[in-house]
Amino acid sequence: MSVDSPRLQAEIEELAAISSAPAPAVTRVLFSDEDVRARKWLAEKFAAEGLLVRQDAAGNLFARWPGSSPELKPVATGSHTDAIPNAGRYDGVVGVLGALEAFRSLRHEGFQPRRTLEILMFTAEEPTRFGLGCLGSRLLSGALEPTRALELRDAEGNTFEELRRHAGCEGDVESVRLDAGAYHAFVELHIEQGPLLEREGIDIGAVEKIAAPAAFRVTIEGEGGHAGAVLMPERRDAALAAAEIALAVERAAIDSESEDTVATTGVFRIEPGAINSVPSRAIVEIDLRDTRQDVRDQAEAQIREAISTIVDRRGVTCTFEVINSDPPATCDPALVDAICAAAETCGCSVRRMISRAYHDSLFMARVCPTAMIFIPCRNGWSHRPDEFATADAIGKGVAVLASVLRRLAE
Amino acid sequence: MSVDSPRLQAEIEELAAISSAPAPAVTRVLFSDEDVRARKWLAEKFAAEGLLVRQDAAGNLFARWPGSSPELKPVATGSHTDAIPNAGRYDGVVGVLGALEAFRSLRHEGFQPRRTLEILMFTAEEPTRFGLGCLGSRLLSGALEPTRALELRDAEGNTFEELRRHAGCEGDVESVRLDAGAYHAFVELHIEQGPLLEREGIDIGAVEKIAAPAAFRVTIEGEGGHAGAVLMPERRDAALAAAEIALAVERAAIDSESEDTVATTGVFRIEPGAINSVPSRAIVEIDLRDTRQDVRDQAEAQIREAISTIVDRRGVTCTFEVINSDPPATCDPALVDAICAAAETCGCSVRRMISRAYHDSLFMARVCPTAMIFIPCRNGWSHRPDEFATADAIGKGVAVLASVLRRLAE
Repeated sequence: MSVDSPRLQAEIEELAAISSAPAPAVTRVLFSDEDVRARKWLAEKFAAEGLLVRQDAAGNLFARWPGSSPELKPVATGSHTDAIPNAGRYDGVVGVLGALEAFRSLRHEGFQPRRTLEILMFTAEEPTRFGLGCLGSRLLSGALEPTRALELRDAEGNTFEELRRHAGCEGDVESVRLDAGAYHAFVELHIEQGPLLEREGIDIGAVEKIAAPAAFRVTIEGEGGHAGAVLMPERRDAALAAAEIALAVERAAIDSESEDTVATTGVFRIEPGAINSVPSRAIVEIDLRDTRQDVRDQAEAQIREAISTIVDRRGVTCTFEVINSDPPATCDPALVDAICAAAETCGCSVRRMISRAYHDSLFMARVCPTAMIFIPCRNGWSHRPDEFATADAIGKGVAVLASVLRRLAE
Repeated sequence: MSVDSPRLQAEIEELAAISSAPAPAVTRVLFSDEDVRARKWLAEKFAAEGLLVRQDAAGNLFARWPGSSPELKPVATGSHTDAIPNAGRYDGVVGVLGALEAFRSLRHEGFQPRRTLEILMFTAEEPTRFGLGCLGSRLLSGALEPTRALELRDAEGNTFEELRRHAGCEGDVESVRLDAGAYHAFVELHIEQGPLLEREGIDIGAVEKIAAPAAFRVTIEGEGGHAGAVLMPERRDAALAAAEIALAVERAAIDSESEDTVATTGVFRIEPGAINSVPSRAIVEIDLRDTRQDVRDQAEAQIREAISTIVDRRGVTCTFEVINSDPPATCDPALVDAICAAAETCGCSVRRMISRAYHDSLFMARVCPTAMIFIPCRNGWSHRPDEFATADAIGKGVAVLASVLRRLAE
């Protein structure tokens, strides 16, 4: 399988330049000007290859290579192109532009699929704007009710409904959901976002399981006051409760019986946020994941109990909101085998592994047999400007993807 | 002494309406549109009373009632009108509009001062914009070098120099500094911002000492990454270091040998601030105060030691920046006596006390004999929208201020 790595690298560069943060950082938040420009750029790339492009009411983008047997279910691949603030250029992008390059490689070889092949670019895999990740694939899979999606509001109070209309997404969001079994298979190529493949010197990871992610928002109401005048015993400082909660979140992950449990408090909003005011209000957002749902549930219970103790002791009140709580996904064993076989065909080393990060595949697994192809990234770094995967690693991933797609579609 | 409380209350209302936050909250940040409009409104109020108004190069506003003996040093009073985000309507304002009402009362009585009387409205007592409080009085007293002031930058990168020019402050900031002994005396009327007077049912506090404030900024550099993929032992989470630091700041105040020590972490800036990213960078701002400098220095040392331990244990790095570190101020004993005597003349109960909050008086005390008049405020609340002082309490404060000014200027 011959992959034109220089062309793919040039396209990754081009897309990285569509960013609201200066290089090397990439920021492309859902339905921002940059996101809309990136979608347009991508649709033009797809169309230039003769693919049939459509966008659904939620902004998911589809690029279709019609097969010779339209009665057969199509085979899909793809990922996302949105990026959190100050992210890198590979997360998601490798699975979208890599899919396009895989199609070109197959065509270059003279391959004509029997099954239709389709690239999906999912809307908002990242939770930046609405606090909820995988918006597009949640809607496609039915994991998110369209009515709930339309009511989501960003920090400025804009609804998903307003923003998608403004970004040119037409139609009824009810129409987005796919029928179960709509695809014969879905395969997503992605950087690992962890250190395993690089550390072990392995080219390809065949993902067997995707960790179960959950996200919580805790809003703490304390009592404000003048930082000089309110004596320590009289305080009900919301930010100090938030600080203790963040440490309890870390503790729950450390105490877990599984090494895979990760818990993060990535968002702190402190009000009034003035150096000379006792914080009256604090909002923290917590991300908790494990490959085993029972272990994750146990960690969640520990976090909730700790919050209750902290809040009582500090005389503050709080609300605990579940943003999402998704079960883990198991990849299709036959597809995982197919990825391993394709890697061997391409001369790549391969290992089976789990994905600790969640991906659109977590939700596509509810629709059809799904699996993921991981490639190594430097130091396992992701969600930061120095995220990096070598052209060679990406090329190998694309070759394996193309080989799997050929096998599935021929 | 007859004080027209309804007029004063109406003016407090009028000024509260000049706010970038909706009522009952008041927000007036230095050189914002609201601050500039409030200055203009105030200058017109002063001029309407026949006072001679001028503004210095730093934006300090002066309103002068010329005395019959211009060879005598003038007597000054005043406070500030800027307000932190979501503050109340009395902090500072009572000392500015109350001074105007005191002047009117004195005039109403037919008083003609021998010494010139002057109201000062100080630029930016609140540290909101530049992280440094008492900008105006620091410059007047020489506690802040003009060159340093001009280089201060707000969160958007605007300098004090640019913003003061834009707000119409002309002249050289070097010219702002007052000569030592420029005034015969300075007396500031202010709400207590603490619960003491209300709790004891006392009308007037005669401030003998102002606590020593210090402010620090700690910038923590950790390592970012994907919240799902980076396992707990591999993390160097900047926000968790910040959380521990905030708790250590609280601990230092609690451990202090003095009950007066207060320590607050009011500002947390966490980057990238995304729910699915391990925080790579955290900035916290700390406010530390005590009436005794040695006790405060001890607390600072404890905080620095704790930070060093936390940072080492978590494998992050940090910088510790002293924003300001001011000594406490002692009020002039004769002026404190004069306030107590005036309170008795006005039929008000009075007690001597310390100010835990800092005020422009902290710096005016470097220029001339200085004292403060405190009045009770509800529950000791300040820096919040429900900050409140009764019209009666304010009226008594104004009467005592007028009485003291009369004694000093006659």
